[in-house]
Amino acid sequence: MKNVLVLIKDGFADWEASYVTAELNKPGTGYQVKTIATDQSQKTSMGGLNVVPDYSLQDFRYELPFEMLIIPGGTEWKEERNQQIEKLIAFCFSNEIPVAAICDATTYLGKHGFLDHHKHTANSLPYLKEAAPNYQGEERYIDAQSVSDGSLITANGSGAVEFSRDILEKLKVLEGEDLRQWYDLFKVGFVKS
Amino acid sequence: MKNVLVLIKDGFADWEASYVTAELNKPGTGYQVKTIATDQSQKTSMGGLNVVPDYSLQDFRYELPFEMLIIPGGTEWKEERNQQIEKLIAFCFSNEIPVAAICDATTYLGKHGFLDHHKHTANSLPYLKEAAPNYQGEERYIDAQSVSDGSLITANGSGAVEFSRDILEKLKVLEGEDLRQWYDLFKVGFVKS
Repeated sequence: MKNVLVLIKDGFADWEASYVTAELNKPGTGYQVKTIATDQSQKTSMGGLNVVPDYSLQDFRYELPFEMLIIPGGTEWKEERNQQIEKLIAFCFSNEIPVAAICDATTYLGKHGFLDHHKHTANSLPYLKEAAPNYQGEERYIDAQSVSDGSLITANGSGAVEFSRDILEKLKVLEGEDLRQWYDLFKVGFVKS
Repeated sequence: MKNVLVLIKDGFADWEASYVTAELNKPGTGYQVKTIATDQSQKTSMGGLNVVPDYSLQDFRYELPFEMLIIPGGTEWKEERNQQIEKLIAFCFSNEIPVAAICDATTYLGKHGFLDHHKHTANSLPYLKEAAPNYQGEERYIDAQSVSDGSLITANGSGAVEFSRDILEKLKVLEGEDLRQWYDLFKVGFVKS
């Protein structure tokens, strides 16, 4: 089974990675979702779920192969300065492991310079430009709920379904007509003919 | 703080109650979300979150006041026969504590006769009619993503946003124009003018 890591923190936004983790974990996809946090203690989501992480960054040895890092947003990203988190994200970008960030997690990437060398990101948050001053050129912001660009996926917090679609496509879990139908089902409520 | 209970099981569907729990838990709503399960051990969601329940039905004394029971669907409802779960749901219906069930949790309610005396439910699942043979009259099924009827809310698994809207309205967390804007933001991605 190939691993997909989801980075969780206290106050992580329950809905933002909820569609895609459930889909990735279905039998037959070849993927399994594992959570990782700064330490092994329970992390409580915005919605009150007390989640025990599968891995802790305190003793994470980077020997575990993984295919993507998904970073949900939440209430605690604004002042985040944990060096282990920066190291994990830098490791992904250096090794071309795709990173999928949504909502405030995108802002965090901007603030820490991780978006500087990427061409396009979702026009995610009003303060993203402020957060990422080195991020040149307004034309890089695309007015879309989710933007998939090379090894980076960025999305708005209200675009959980679009974010999921882009991840499922990147990991080749669903493609073409199947992907379109999955998206329609969860976005509109039925599969358009 | 008023409590809202979310009944979790192994394989619970991550996205189905994710919008509403995060919204209910925001500062100022007057509500807090607590999870309850058949026992105190970790329950793993479809998407792989290992969740430690706040309460266990094994020693739940029904002294905790709560304003609603939310039941997410998931992979393990089809054969569910736990008597403590039945007792909890029966307690809610007897005491007019609203029950909000989505996806396979609705089917479970039907199978166990809990829908028999309710007028309208979401035309949720192809096998709901089969599951609830005493549930009379096709006209009771409303073709909608979520249906709010007295102390019962039922919804399709692809209608998490509609389900959340109906819960927020029932609990008077959001109303009128505010509720409409919340719904637009999460359903369409922007607030319609």
